[in-house]
Amino acid sequence: MMATEETRVRQLIERWAAAISAQDRAGILADHSDDLLMFDFPSTVRGIGPYDRTWDFFFADPKGPIRFVPRELEVTAGADVAFATCLIRCEGTSAGVVELRLTTGLCKIDDKWVVTHEHHSVPTVESRFKGPAH
Amino acid sequence: MMATEETRVRQLIERWAAAISAQDRAGILADHSDDLLMFDFPSTVRGIGPYDRTWDFFFADPKGPIRFVPRELEVTAGADVAFATCLIRCEGTSAGVVELRLTTGLCKIDDKWVVTHEHHSVPTVESRFKGPAH
Repeated sequence: MMATEETRVRQLIERWAAAISAQDRAGILADHSDDLLMFDFPSTVRGIGPYDRTWDFFFADPKGPIRFVPRELEVTAGADVAFATCLIRCEGTSAGVVELRLTTGLCKIDDKWVVTHEHHSVPTVESRFKGPAH
Repeated sequence: MMATEETRVRQLIERWAAAISAQDRAGILADHSDDLLMFDFPSTVRGIGPYDRTWDFFFADPKGPIRFVPRELEVTAGADVAFATCLIRCEGTSAGVVELRLTTGLCKIDDKWVVTHEHHSVPTVESRFKGPAH
């Protein structure tokens, strides 16, 4: 692990989450690749344009101030590839309170970390996936 | 990107998926870290023991032969950190046919790639997350 790179990735994710809370659409996209792959809650999204549009729905019909706060953020960073995991409590959107899991994949390009992948999910509510082990 | 490392990670994930189809419990765990973090469909799991037990439920009450087949596998590998994404069609378990999304995070330790993170999810069926953009 490279401590400096880990710190840079951590700061990038915290900055991105703060941009979401601030409804700063440019800030949300600032460190993202043109061809990123996002596994969103309901669908798979490829490219910065479709990624940007997922935030239209996210910010529509808010129930209150948006809060999007990561916790348990863990970063694994090499010299030029990194991934990160965290849990996020999201409040204020039309969906109500959402507890989600996020995995982020990043590459360093021209000494700048860039997000090339995001995997957002909520724990499933479908009974077919709930065994006694859970 | 490092082509050789990318190939090694790709082969690891294909080997792991084949072990699932073969119900080879030792093979499923062979390349996994003792303290891996798994975002499973319904819950968060930490450690190889709890990870192993998630497969008890997976393999219980099968409806037919298990098939667990990745497609659109994309690997981003540096010298010692990598992540991978794929879509998986899973057949034969008690849950019926499942189309899932998988992100895998890996570190290279003593020249061996080790899975330290898996994020499994199914597209949500909750209407609160389905906007016109999807």
